[in-house]
Amino acid sequence: MELRAFQDLMARTYGARDRERGTAASVAWLVEEVGELAQAVRKGGDDARLHELGDVLAWLASIADQLGLSLDDAARRYADGCPRCSALPCECP
Amino acid sequence: MELRAFQDLMARTYGARDRERGTAASVAWLVEEVGELAQAVRKGGDDARLHELGDVLAWLASIADQLGLSLDDAARRYADGCPRCSALPCECP
Repeated sequence: MELRAFQDLMARTYGARDRERGTAASVAWLVEEVGELAQAVRKGGDDARLHELGDVLAWLASIADQLGLSLDDAARRYADGCPRCSALPCECP
Repeated sequence: MELRAFQDLMARTYGARDRERGTAASVAWLVEEVGELAQAVRKGGDDARLHELGDVLAWLASIADQLGLSLDDAARRYADGCPRCSALPCECP
């Protein structure tokens, strides 16, 4: 799936409600989902891990959308390798 | 950018080092970046926000990769609308 398509899908599915909550509440939800992902990484199976990866990604897309920004643009910062050392693979010390 | 292409790019750029660190350290890095995103949402400009969105996405891709899972598969859970209520837009109470 394209990052732009995913962000658009999240906006159509949850955008109205998320915008009503606002970015601070959305950041709080993101943190909650990151906690659930941490637990799934530590002791979950593949289904739980995939579920939580998706939930974190969904909140990230929602926050980007509320900020008027694009996850696709954010990803493109890495398109030519590590943005710090400009190497691929990264050669940062 | 396709989610699969982004995850593959992250694996080629940082995979060897991230795998050496392991998933627990990668979850810790993810949390650090989520904190930086929270700060950028609260008081940053668009450049800082886009930067931090990308960093969170990068760590999420790294963790998925180390777990042998795909962010694209995770995203597809939302393809037909909200996975809880099956509606688009979401109609969860």
